[in-house]
Amino acid sequence: MAIQKPSIPKGTRDFSPTEMARRNFILDTIKTVYRLYGYQQIETPAMENLSTLEGKYGEEGDKLLFRVLNSGNVLDQLQTSNTKLQTKDIAEKGLRYDLTVPFARYVVMHQNEITFPFKRFQVQPVWRADRPQKGRYREFVQCDADVIGSTSLLNEVELVQIIQDVFQKLNIGVAIKLNNRKILTGIAEVIGEADKIIDITVAIDKLDKIGVEKVNEELKSKGLSDEALKKIQPLFSFKGSNEEKLSFLKSYLTTSEIGKKGIEELEYIFNSEIQNSNLVLDITLARGLNYYTGAIFEVKVNDPRSTFTSSVLGGGRYDDLTGIFGLPNVSGVGISFGVDRIYDVMDEMKLFDSLHVAASTTKVLFVNFGGEEEKHCLKVLQHLRLNGINSEIYPDSNAKMKKQMSYADANKIPYVILVGSEEMQSGKLTLKNMLDGNQTKITFQELLSLMV
Amino acid sequence: MAIQKPSIPKGTRDFSPTEMARRNFILDTIKTVYRLYGYQQIETPAMENLSTLEGKYGEEGDKLLFRVLNSGNVLDQLQTSNTKLQTKDIAEKGLRYDLTVPFARYVVMHQNEITFPFKRFQVQPVWRADRPQKGRYREFVQCDADVIGSTSLLNEVELVQIIQDVFQKLNIGVAIKLNNRKILTGIAEVIGEADKIIDITVAIDKLDKIGVEKVNEELKSKGLSDEALKKIQPLFSFKGSNEEKLSFLKSYLTTSEIGKKGIEELEYIFNSEIQNSNLVLDITLARGLNYYTGAIFEVKVNDPRSTFTSSVLGGGRYDDLTGIFGLPNVSGVGISFGVDRIYDVMDEMKLFDSLHVAASTTKVLFVNFGGEEEKHCLKVLQHLRLNGINSEIYPDSNAKMKKQMSYADANKIPYVILVGSEEMQSGKLTLKNMLDGNQTKITFQELLSLMV
Repeated sequence: MAIQKPSIPKGTRDFSPTEMARRNFILDTIKTVYRLYGYQQIETPAMENLSTLEGKYGEEGDKLLFRVLNSGNVLDQLQTSNTKLQTKDIAEKGLRYDLTVPFARYVVMHQNEITFPFKRFQVQPVWRADRPQKGRYREFVQCDADVIGSTSLLNEVELVQIIQDVFQKLNIGVAIKLNNRKILTGIAEVIGEADKIIDITVAIDKLDKIGVEKVNEELKSKGLSDEALKKIQPLFSFKGSNEEKLSFLKSYLTTSEIGKKGIEELEYIFNSEIQNSNLVLDITLARGLNYYTGAIFEVKVNDPRSTFTSSVLGGGRYDDLTGIFGLPNVSGVGISFGVDRIYDVMDEMKLFDSLHVAASTTKVLFVNFGGEEEKHCLKVLQHLRLNGINSEIYPDSNAKMKKQMSYADANKIPYVILVGSEEMQSGKLTLKNMLDGNQTKITFQELLSLMV
Repeated sequence: MAIQKPSIPKGTRDFSPTEMARRNFILDTIKTVYRLYGYQQIETPAMENLSTLEGKYGEEGDKLLFRVLNSGNVLDQLQTSNTKLQTKDIAEKGLRYDLTVPFARYVVMHQNEITFPFKRFQVQPVWRADRPQKGRYREFVQCDADVIGSTSLLNEVELVQIIQDVFQKLNIGVAIKLNNRKILTGIAEVIGEADKIIDITVAIDKLDKIGVEKVNEELKSKGLSDEALKKIQPLFSFKGSNEEKLSFLKSYLTTSEIGKKGIEELEYIFNSEIQNSNLVLDITLARGLNYYTGAIFEVKVNDPRSTFTSSVLGGGRYDDLTGIFGLPNVSGVGISFGVDRIYDVMDEMKLFDSLHVAASTTKVLFVNFGGEEEKHCLKVLQHLRLNGINSEIYPDSNAKMKKQMSYADANKIPYVILVGSEEMQSGKLTLKNMLDGNQTKITFQELLSLMV
């Protein structure tokens, strides 16, 4: 066979041991907190039937699905007739596009085994045929938690606590933005444009990016009356604390029953016993409006050490997610952490270094001189490992000392042990501290207490 | 949209919280042992270029690759001419078929960042378009460790130790079968049929299954001379301890240099300081002969509590795996655990029950009576969680007591806390032990010391 210069598909990534250690640190932190709040893990297959995936992510989403060719000689069998082939003739399966639709499918298929409310988390890759660009990949991990089968707002409160716990453990300063779809619906009602709710929220969602003037232009172009436009202006200019915003909304939404319900739901969260210094009520937050029916969450980095202000989490409450698969009236609420962005933020702030997250977890390397010395080392090593100490011996005894030490250096192994004839006689071990270069002679017991 | 009855592609699986807890137990055990021996984790993309995958798994393997349709309107663009479409026109990527070829590709692409010897482990799903049947899936997790860039037999010894440690921790009795490709080559040489090495090993690999007579028939049909057939018979009938087998091989392979090298390599492993009561020299073990060049490993369940005798691990040494990608003369040795089979074995022996592996890790559930009682519970809950205790409150305060208790039962939560007006006054908590039904009043400190 000819020698090929290998490559990987665009938009995909290899993860080195260093990157894996850092990614595991983030994912393990999130998983630990999910479990702290009683969430249980599930996994679903990478491939789903296209009938499960298609039509769930809009027209744009359907285009971005990766489709898997049916197995067997699909093309040979089908190209006999003169009719044009269609994608559905040759592909019945697609790669998971997110974790929410597979979860809805899971709940419906396993409804008789599940005890509701069902608090599930799921950490798996998803695939999207997006145009690859900086920070956007065709394969990336999602990290979701959802409660399904409970309408209690306590779930929203606990999800906010989960968010706070995770970012505190990761040592990233954030602002947690909250809104409620019912507030948005209320606004559309009181300005007399209830039927334009989607246009209105799509436009005001852009307030941060394009400013008031452009938002007004967009609203006008969508056919909002001058009176409605005038009525909506106070929302764009209002500044204040969460309390001030809530009391403003109370006077603004007096004529909308659904709007008042939205205020009530927000107040429940803001008045709960959780520490809420980083909770921000953002009346313009909409995020995938067609989807959410109650609370809407978004987290942005807000840390003086970071230049990032990007979104690192999204979520909200949705009613009737499982309806499309035949199980109506099941309410759910959930969040999804953006692991790749969190990685970039932590990398920029050098948090992985200060947390000592490293590729190798080996605490000590035994230099290999071969012969009886090697056998002696193997016995010591066995005892260390029985005590759960990650440890190694350099495998090749004919490698030069310098090469063996470089291996310890490259893998940032903090200690090296040398065993020669002298050490074998005395029963002691020569320990080299790789950080300061100091060498000392110690007993096995002393080594063990240094390691644990 | 019409309501669809959802399903998943054949040969794929959902994993429930209980199954996930059990799978995580197995995978975490293996990962912990890999790290104990200094192995570092990597991950590669689910999709590889087909040029990386094709031709690496034989003709049969190529047929079993899942191919991913190029994105965009592939078919529309291509069906303009009259020429027949070929798979390569519409699919450039395929799903990972194993972890070894992607690892070889990884090593070549990242050779300048890697410090050799490189001890890597990798735990990821692979996909094969096999006909689904009991215990065989189209998506399954592989769990590999390999050392690359070291010819030392100490690596083989440590891999045997890893195998022993893992199955000891999993509490499964096993037999670790060892052979060496050089022994097989030596046998072909001394019977005067060196060029029929593949036919010979394919045949004797079946000895266990089809017996001596059929193996002899197959060898004859492949053109082995009567003299060669006569010379090979002692191998089939020889029984004895590992030492007896080695001394038999020494007298049998005297005229084969490579055979003697094979004996030497086996002796190094059998004479190493490792506990070797479950190591078995099996002269007929071949496993993917085209691939391995030195040691060959296989592990079979050997436990009186299990009806399984299936293979739960395979591995061996291979030279020049990375040659096809342009990096010649790099030797490697590795193993791969069969996670699905290990799961079935542990399930049959009810080991997950005795190890208390459960879907929920929640230690205590607070019954929710709403109002001030709920607020009181949330404060206690916050303290428990600050102490790292996995704990929950039932989210819906309007749910009946019976329903809330059933939730604790279904999730096998061991303790339930009840807080009513009396408890709020006294500052104590009513604790119900769900195993024996006993109720006691305790302080928070007493609860905490019960939980940790």
